Amino acid sequence: MKYLYGVDVGGTSVKLGLFSIEGELIDKFEIKTNTENNGQTILTDIANSLKEHMKEKQVNKSNIYGVGIGVPGPVTNGVVNGCVNLGWGIVNVKDGLENLLDLKVAVSNDANIAGLGEMWKGGGSGYQNLVFITLGTGVGGAVVVDHQVIDGHTGTGGEIGHAPSLNSPFKCNCGKIGCLETITSATGVVRLAKKLLTEKETPSLLRYEDEISAKTVFDAAKKNDSIAKETIEIFGQNLGFVCATMGVITNPQVFVFGGGVSRAGQIILDVVIKYFKQYAFYSIKDTTEFKLATLENEAGIYGAAYLAKNLGEV
Amino acid sequence: MKYLYGVDVGGTSVKLGLFSIEGELIDKFEIKTNTENNGQTILTDIANSLKEHMKEKQVNKSNIYGVGIGVPGPVTNGVVNGCVNLGWGIVNVKDGLENLLDLKVAVSNDANIAGLGEMWKGGGSGYQNLVFITLGTGVGGAVVVDHQVIDGHTGTGGEIGHAPSLNSPFKCNCGKIGCLETITSATGVVRLAKKLLTEKETPSLLRYEDEISAKTVFDAAKKNDSIAKETIEIFGQNLGFVCATMGVITNPQVFVFGGGVSRAGQIILDVVIKYFKQYAFYSIKDTTEFKLATLENEAGIYGAAYLAKNLGEV
Repeated sequence: MKYLYGVDVGGTSVKLGLFSIEGELIDKFEIKTNTENNGQTILTDIANSLKEHMKEKQVNKSNIYGVGIGVPGPVTNGVVNGCVNLGWGIVNVKDGLENLLDLKVAVSNDANIAGLGEMWKGGGSGYQNLVFITLGTGVGGAVVVDHQVIDGHTGTGGEIGHAPSLNSPFKCNCGKIGCLETITSATGVVRLAKKLLTEKETPSLLRYEDEISAKTVFDAAKKNDSIAKETIEIFGQNLGFVCATMGVITNPQVFVFGGGVSRAGQIILDVVIKYFKQYAFYSIKDTTEFKLATLENEAGIYGAAYLAKNLGEV
Repeated sequence: MKYLYGVDVGGTSVKLGLFSIEGELIDKFEIKTNTENNGQTILTDIANSLKEHMKEKQVNKSNIYGVGIGVPGPVTNGVVNGCVNLGWGIVNVKDGLENLLDLKVAVSNDANIAGLGEMWKGGGSGYQNLVFITLGTGVGGAVVVDHQVIDGHTGTGGEIGHAPSLNSPFKCNCGKIGCLETITSATGVVRLAKKLLTEKETPSLLRYEDEISAKTVFDAAKKNDSIAKETIEIFGQNLGFVCATMGVITNPQVFVFGGGVSRAGQIILDVVIKYFKQYAFYSIKDTTEFKLATLENEAGIYGAAYLAKNLGEV
């Protein structure tokens, strides 16, 4: 039997999974991300943890197809160009981990592997051209064409959160005004709702919340709260607008939405589809599908394993 | 010596070129596009013309690598799904021409082959990730990743003219309001200038023109005419805006501008770069290049020949 390892490196923990070559998750485990001293032990920690796991599960190295790994930063040719959350500058993850493990390693960024995971075994399963959009604290994504993630020449492919929005007045963490994520991330939805609450005197359930979250906004919208509904409309308008642009750039079969905000469910799809249809070219208006992600926190290890699968025979 | 044929089918004429495998244009010729009877003789006309040319130039069929052909309509797997300008419905161009010629044939749409031509031997030469934008009567384009055009699942990849613009109030021929080409095509530039001339009382050189064209608008802008300059700013704002979105989708190394409007030259690049920098994510702001196309009307045959080059050994 041939195996794959999928590794998803986050700022607080590293998720790891052992997979069959067909993509069945056999075992998963987690280690702490040690960001001390600019995260210089992270790769060694991962390598040691994998070695231990192989021993424990009696997985022979010769049966491992490869190791896929996702990191929270822009990757080109196995090299990551800075990961603020890990304390990393430029790190050659591929060479580093290959030397430590004596196994083939494939590297991509965290949003890209989540997209590949959803394509392989999640909401985008069965599609080869898709766009995965993760609506979390920020907004990220992966543009997949013929089963391959498009990294782009500076590793900025799929950085959908920093597409210019139609009408966001907010300043983004990146320094630019109006990035899509300033309105469509979890924090963006809250920011927008608060702005509307300040500007308007309309009664709203949200005025009684101690702390407004994206979830409370979507919940209030489901209860027909007008401020919450207006927030969701602006959210959907901007997301649908950018999806309509992507529809004439890479023309995906399906958009798959993941991340915390997507837990609001069908309401997300409904409002995005509404505005997508308004902004989209006729040839894609009714042929493009919209789905929710299904793998949640495991999307990354699935996608990392998928990367490993494409490394070729050991 | 191995040869390629590149064929670019337009609504009034078909351009054909014989190329060396390295991309040297050896001979070019042209035939009329016969659109009578739903253009049913077009493929036969092309096949006959190629056969005659081979005889005339004493090119042995066994020395021809393949024939590439571009058609003005959406193509998937060698089949074009309607070409209004040719009178075509669904036509299997690949099978049709292969049967007529007994040669390998590769098919793509006209904007895509122009993009490949510019990548191979034109303004995008030396780049493997680029976006080609043709600013003509309409606005089309090609999104190229790793030397491959992205067609998308309905052949709508690169239909950049129908990306939603930031602020166009105009209705597009496609039926949608606000498509990028309603402002940035040759007709779009004129439409926009006329709107500003009507709305404002500012003196303008354009008020003395019998007929305003995109060229007269750009010429007037170069002479510091305020209405013309405002037109060009809105043109550049919308084009720069959509380029900034593409910058985080496929993250090209270079944007190459062709088509009649691009003959205005450096002024196009200057205004697009100005707004691109305003809307673009920091990681692409200074690393993305902007160039003018150089092959003009020959881009299509070059790109079609490039398609043929990738058909593999005969």
